[in-house]
Amino acid sequence: MSFQTGEKFKISIFGQSHSEEMGVVIDNLPSGFMIDEDKLAAFMARRAPGRDAFSTSRKEGDKVRFVSGITDGKTNGAPLCAIIENTNTRSKDYENLKDIPRPGHADFAAWSKFGEDRDVSGGGQFSGRLTAPLCIAGGIFKQILEKKGIYIGAHIASIGKVKDDLFDSVNVCEKDFVGDKAFPVINDSKGEEMQKEILDAKGEADSIGGTVECAIVGIPAGVGNTFFGGWESVISSKVFAIPAVKGIEFGRGFEASALRGSENNDAFIIKNGKIVTETNNHGGIMGGISSGMPIIFRVAFKPTPSIGKEQRSVSLSKMESVALVIHGRHDPCIVQRAAVCVEAAAAVAIADTLL
Amino acid sequence: MSFQTGEKFKISIFGQSHSEEMGVVIDNLPSGFMIDEDKLAAFMARRAPGRDAFSTSRKEGDKVRFVSGITDGKTNGAPLCAIIENTNTRSKDYENLKDIPRPGHADFAAWSKFGEDRDVSGGGQFSGRLTAPLCIAGGIFKQILEKKGIYIGAHIASIGKVKDDLFDSVNVCEKDFVGDKAFPVINDSKGEEMQKEILDAKGEADSIGGTVECAIVGIPAGVGNTFFGGWESVISSKVFAIPAVKGIEFGRGFEASALRGSENNDAFIIKNGKIVTETNNHGGIMGGISSGMPIIFRVAFKPTPSIGKEQRSVSLSKMESVALVIHGRHDPCIVQRAAVCVEAAAAVAIADTLL
Amino acid sequence: MSFQTGEKFKISIFGQSHSEEMGVVIDNLPSGFMIDEDKLAAFMARRAPGRDAFSTSRKEGDKVRFVSGITDGKTNGAPLCAIIENTNTRSKDYENLKDIPRPGHADFAAWSKFGEDRDVSGGGQFSGRLTAPLCIAGGIFKQILEKKGIYIGAHIASIGKVKDDLFDSVNVCEKDFVGDKAFPVINDSKGEEMQKEILDAKGEADSIGGTVECAIVGIPAGVGNTFFGGWESVISSKVFAIPAVKGIEFGRGFEASALRGSENNDAFIIKNGKIVTETNNHGGIMGGISSGMPIIFRVAFKPTPSIGKEQRSVSLSKMESVALVIHGRHDPCIVQRAAVCVEAAAAVAIADTLL
Amino acid sequence: MSFQTGEKFKISIFGQSHSEEMGVVIDNLPSGFMIDEDKLAAFMARRAPGRDAFSTSRKEGDKVRFVSGITDGKTNGAPLCAIIENTNTRSKDYENLKDIPRPGHADFAAWSKFGEDRDVSGGGQFSGRLTAPLCIAGGIFKQILEKKGIYIGAHIASIGKVKDDLFDSVNVCEKDFVGDKAFPVINDSKGEEMQKEILDAKGEADSIGGTVECAIVGIPAGVGNTFFGGWESVISSKVFAIPAVKGIEFGRGFEASALRGSENNDAFIIKNGKIVTETNNHGGIMGGISSGMPIIFRVAFKPTPSIGKEQRSVSLSKMESVALVIHGRHDPCIVQRAAVCVEAAAAVAIADTLL
Repeated sequence: MSFQTGEKFKISIFGQSHSEEMGVVIDNLPSGFMIDEDKLAAFMARRAPGRDAFSTSRKEGDKVRFVSGITDGKTNGAPLCAIIENTNTRSKDYENLKDIPRPGHADFAAWSKFGEDRDVSGGGQFSGRLTAPLCIAGGIFKQILEKKGIYIGAHIASIGKVKDDLFDSVNVCEKDFVGDKAFPVINDSKGEEMQKEILDAKGEADSIGGTVECAIVGIPAGVGNTFFGGWESVISSKVFAIPAVKGIEFGRGFEASALRGSENNDAFIIKNGKIVTETNNHGGIMGGISSGMPIIFRVAFKPTPSIGKEQRSVSLSKMESVALVIHGRHDPCIVQRAAVCVEAAAAVAIADTLL
Repeated sequence: MSFQTGEKFKISIFGQSHSEEMGVVIDNLPSGFMIDEDKLAAFMARRAPGRDAFSTSRKEGDKVRFVSGITDGKTNGAPLCAIIENTNTRSKDYENLKDIPRPGHADFAAWSKFGEDRDVSGGGQFSGRLTAPLCIAGGIFKQILEKKGIYIGAHIASIGKVKDDLFDSVNVCEKDFVGDKAFPVINDSKGEEMQKEILDAKGEADSIGGTVECAIVGIPAGVGNTFFGGWESVISSKVFAIPAVKGIEFGRGFEASALRGSENNDAFIIKNGKIVTETNNHGGIMGGISSGMPIIFRVAFKPTPSIGKEQRSVSLSKMESVALVIHGRHDPCIVQRAAVCVEAAAAVAIADTLL
Repeated sequence: MSFQTGEKFKISIFGQSHSEEMGVVIDNLPSGFMIDEDKLAAFMARRAPGRDAFSTSRKEGDKVRFVSGITDGKTNGAPLCAIIENTNTRSKDYENLKDIPRPGHADFAAWSKFGEDRDVSGGGQFSGRLTAPLCIAGGIFKQILEKKGIYIGAHIASIGKVKDDLFDSVNVCEKDFVGDKAFPVINDSKGEEMQKEILDAKGEADSIGGTVECAIVGIPAGVGNTFFGGWESVISSKVFAIPAVKGIEFGRGFEASALRGSENNDAFIIKNGKIVTETNNHGGIMGGISSGMPIIFRVAFKPTPSIGKEQRSVSLSKMESVALVIHGRHDPCIVQRAAVCVEAAAAVAIADTLL
Repeated sequence: MSFQTGEKFKISIFGQSHSEEMGVVIDNLPSGFMIDEDKLAAFMARRAPGRDAFSTSRKEGDKVRFVSGITDGKTNGAPLCAIIENTNTRSKDYENLKDIPRPGHADFAAWSKFGEDRDVSGGGQFSGRLTAPLCIAGGIFKQILEKKGIYIGAHIASIGKVKDDLFDSVNVCEKDFVGDKAFPVINDSKGEEMQKEILDAKGEADSIGGTVECAIVGIPAGVGNTFFGGWESVISSKVFAIPAVKGIEFGRGFEASALRGSENNDAFIIKNGKIVTETNNHGGIMGGISSGMPIIFRVAFKPTPSIGKEQRSVSLSKMESVALVIHGRHDPCIVQRAAVCVEAAAAVAIADTLL
């Protein structure tokens, strides 16, 4: 499978960067859930391109149209299909790319797998734009999860070498989430430094990477499965669907690999009559199953591969080296737009087990 | 699902740390493959406990017995079931743990999910011992993959703060693999430092974490799926099944998040009449699909949670704080034994798509 | 899952009888396949309503619009989404049905499961209209299968008590298929009797059931899986998705249950240098796997539940018995339109294993 | 997949007719369920061979040994693995069958798929003996379902042309089940006729087929899924896993295809304050979902293919016609032993949705 996932809720994403429409089908949604369309639109807007100087100038409204599964605003038990339009496509920007794969992009791998019949425009099915239907699904699941007291929030943890503060992994809760900010960081002065970092990269016709931290709060202890079905497996497999993700770590993550057991183990204590851990190095997951503490993970995004600088590539038809300059509209950094995608991927991942 | 995985080859693992037997069923294996039992035994031996001072003194032969699926040494097309015995169990070591969850272990999550009916002995289904059947499956798939020219090798990349050399991500090939070494590192002098690190931790009744780097070589460009089905999703979801894994990164991974696009993008060049990348920051995967370069990833293992030092926990029955000292036999470090598990998980992950 | 199926090719159907659009997403189609749109339109036309006196007067063009997955007429490797419009909806016909479940329909079960939030119009997700997107998927797979020499054909085997001739189960091949006929029977004089049977039922404001026989030719011996994955399991699970199907039998089917082994066993013989069976009581499937003989099965359709006669039902709100007369446009018999759905379901079923 | 099934509960069967052991793994069973081992043994005994003159003289105790997943008699949340031994194998009976496929058996299909490496002895993976592990899984699920008030019962509905009475499809309940009878029929005098039929076939070195009727009672209205996920799809795909099954029908089934809508539709009435149908032609399933009425289906079994009479086959190595006489121990009829397998398959099928 590729664009389909889920055990209970089957999610099927379709579209290409420059197809007229793209969308998602969700099978098996329970009936009777009222989708807050304004809230969903606000969620989509967090991902939408063209909002400011830090991202691509391609503008898309990303207005969600429900084709099926909704009657009078509520889910009706039939498969939900939601569609958005691709209005602002400029396929001619991609004409020469049919022969010259862009470094850092999927172009070469796509050509190797699909040959001449692949859709080249805008990266086709490999475009980051495919995260828009992921966000539709994730936005809907987030709403359903919130009715059950489960909240998901992500923020930019770093851009280049500039780091935001991290969530308080023990106490983080819904009110700490910063998704509503135009530039979703905890520490706004760090955010300003990050924006400068992005504009510097942009000024040099370059791009910059970053990391996103995500917290899931409200899952009680003892939920989830083991081994292949553990939360880390479930979450990571969805998060890696987001283009440009190159790493994921839970709790202390890679840092824990340099620690002693006595430093990394989280002591159990009783707080307000409940068993909790004093620290949360484990990131809310033990043996694949929730511990009742916030689930915390961080995701690494590589720098946007599309840059204005000249790069070395090859002509697929002539099998010779060529210099490539990429035109078109691109993000100097996608991390600020990616935070919402991480939330969406997490929502899709956990909905299967939690609903 | 928990101990079951796979789309084409369905793998189903069973057993608990102290069940009489444990094993694995593999459905849909092609017929006519001669399993090299000596090679499989050697692969199992790399994981087996009790070999040296760096790991637990619990000794298990881990001799594989084929129950079905094999006729005259060859796969016969029926589901393959392979079983190993648990001979050296000392369940009384775990008697007091029924009431007191061990910090860093799955005990509390297991109690939250399964209640009093869970199997406590040796960690039950949450024990690292469940990676033995994973290694049976992985060892078999590795043999089949090798017939197709695909090789998987992992080494210890770090123990605590001591780092091994990394694979040459562009040129790494089968002969660079160090799995046959008793202590699988590329740079043996670093290996000696690591062993000292482990013995230091052991001497202090403590434990230490580390990382493993894994390379998969021989997958041609254009293999794999996209989005939810990309190689990163597929591999990560299997690797996180290994207990104690807290992070995974592909190619430059988290480091790439601090880079500029111009630094991280890999230029395409022509080498020996083939299109390759000059560097391999992308780790052999583009848009979820293989690029033809070695697939490279690193995995973070937390320190073994079982340590001899006194720790703070709670009594589940009395809901009060208690001091806990864990007896029993434990690894001061599991990373040297985990490298083979990473290979096994990778083999299971890629077999589904490649065979 | 409900409207999603498939192991390799994930198919996800969406829509309701009276949603503006309905459609299907097919994930993982190979790239480079040129879809013959005229042929697909002709296939869809076989199912489309409103063509003659034997079916409902609701008219739908069922023109297929490809949203994604196609570039220049060929599959491009991205998920294929195809949509048709529902143009001729008369939802007011269904207003009183919100409270009174129609006998023989899914209304009561739907209310029991989904409550007041279900879509009542036209039967919502339970409408036979949902077989239109099934036919899109099936029509595409049929075309791909035909390139591999595999053909699927179905005919009306009976209407009421009038029986068509059956396929010659040993020799049936593509040229014997009658799908292009307006009334797809082998024996046209039987077809005339059947049509009279339908018009008789219609004249009495009643409906009539029937059976469909389907043959799949061109699958070589030794293809398919065993036990839960056998062809009978795979095919039956897709065929029962078609509303109104109440039974399926392979080869001699129920008749075989009254036979002796010596009568039912098919002798092996050598014909044209190939091992075949002399008769084909087994229906082309042995141990779940293809024998190389035509795969033959028959499907029972109940009479259309919507009839003009007064029927006894209950008011859900008042919990009292009521007399119900159904208005609206209905098929006195759906078997002639269902034959193509059986072909579509069979194509979807076998594509997973054969492509 | 072949021997693996299930969405929530993953079931993986392993073994061959003459492997030393065979068994089943069930993943994701809830913890805390006390398995009644005597009841399970009694369930297994209904399937076990060698009990009387009507079945094969091969005797197997089929004593179930739990390898994992059970602590103190209760499920512990780990994967349950249960194993039975094959003690009474006489592989030499099958030596000549390596070259000569038995008519009606899977031998030829198996050779076509798996080649020389298949396991020939006793039919290998295609043996009806593989239904023993299916019965372990089914027997366990039946016990769990019964705790929820859901009961499954099957009886012989016909042997050859002799028919048992059918269940009262409206009122059938647990106390009507006849599984405990040595020869499970409703009408014992019909049972005597059937036994005569079997002995007649046996006397002529022949075999005879039959049908099994199964009822599932206690599922409330509104349970199950739609379309591909409907109860008919779910149940049929499991039932066809049983070797020798050639057909299945729900409710009135094939008979309904000859009826008028006014005859087949079941009127809704109110009985004891509940909405029910007056008749149950629909067999308890509407639109794929339970109606609250008993689920009723019938299954056609072909005559046992192994008969003592000389049959015509071919030599695979010499590609020439040969006469074949099958020795070994065989059932003149498997229907009386198959009834319990139908119950097991039904239990496996519905557990996924109901637990």
